[in-house]
Amino acid sequence: MKIELEKVLPAEIEKRSFEIITEELQGRVFLEDQELIIKRVIHTTADFEYADNLKFSEGAVSKAIEAIKSGACIVTDTQMAKAGINKKSLAKHGGEVYCFMSDDDVALEAKELGTTRATASMNKAARLEKDVIFAIGNAPTALVHLYELINEHKITPKLIIGVPVGFVNVVPSKELIMKTDIPYIVAKGRKGGSNVAAAICNALLYMINNER
Amino acid sequence: MKIELEKVLPAEIEKRSFEIITEELQGRVFLEDQELIIKRVIHTTADFEYADNLKFSEGAVSKAIEAIKSGACIVTDTQMAKAGINKKSLAKHGGEVYCFMSDDDVALEAKELGTTRATASMNKAARLEKDVIFAIGNAPTALVHLYELINEHKITPKLIIGVPVGFVNVVPSKELIMKTDIPYIVAKGRKGGSNVAAAICNALLYMINNER
Repeated sequence: MKIELEKVLPAEIEKRSFEIITEELQGRVFLEDQELIIKRVIHTTADFEYADNLKFSEGAVSKAIEAIKSGACIVTDTQMAKAGINKKSLAKHGGEVYCFMSDDDVALEAKELGTTRATASMNKAARLEKDVIFAIGNAPTALVHLYELINEHKITPKLIIGVPVGFVNVVPSKELIMKTDIPYIVAKGRKGGSNVAAAICNALLYMINNER
Repeated sequence: MKIELEKVLPAEIEKRSFEIITEELQGRVFLEDQELIIKRVIHTTADFEYADNLKFSEGAVSKAIEAIKSGACIVTDTQMAKAGINKKSLAKHGGEVYCFMSDDDVALEAKELGTTRATASMNKAARLEKDVIFAIGNAPTALVHLYELINEHKITPKLIIGVPVGFVNVVPSKELIMKTDIPYIVAKGRKGGSNVAAAICNALLYMINNER
């Protein structure tokens, strides 16, 4: 068997990938501001299910872009998502990325309250005196606690990217977020992940940069 | 619609997840040393396609475990995978995780040679005077260049985790690795990712720890 490699210049690989994704979506139409996010998530996962799974509250993308331009920070529940988000691009607008999961005070609070560290890290995020976009790629308990904090008027996120992955309470945690009046981008079902959370953040950032 | 959350203690969530994965695999039988790796990748992605996609060269898992126990380091092509790999667990055996993708000398070499940074970072890895496990979660060009370096006898990896994701040369790059006589764990097809690369590394590390 001859293995053939396609000749593509390094700088052209991403462009060619998006062309292939567009071809395979066979003319499917998305809302303009959602399209780049959906395609970037497919680019990150090679999983076309996201064309159906990703759900956006009305105006979520434009609200998120507005928040980032006004200096909103991003709080995520994994070091992997933090590593994957384009922090230079966010810093241009004054924002930074936080992940509190490895913080000693979060570990201590989780132990004392008998919760997950993800839950405790949402409490820490609620004490930030900043506009916050949440990018949750791992822990459904983070989403569940965000829902509680929102209902208790302790937090008003600018956007919730709700894409935890897994088998225990992942599906209902996303449904809870879709019941709030907070702007959201959610991957319905079990799928998601830190890579998906980072891809959505980066898609938003790249949309802002191209806009200039 | 009533949204019901399953009551699971924080410490039990992972165990419960693996039970669900096992149930849904409906008694499917895997080689014993491959089973935990396959299930951890499904746990990380909620994608059961990995039960079919993951391909192991003969004895890959035991060779990988031997290498880690002997202090092999892990070289990966993304900061996300580096962030996701359990570095404390690896350090117990003397290994550490490297990602050269953001290094200035790698950026310079890539520019000079007209290659990707992933390709240049494999050259840098080849100059490490250590046993190396490669965990490639993003760049097919890294796998293609590893194949070249192996054929030129410039490198003899202890294991190649070949799980880049995407649309341009991802499929053939994995096929190339499966043609070498280097131990491999490869996700055939387009799927994979930094999260999958990290999950496979962590599954290996957890197998070693439970063994003790």
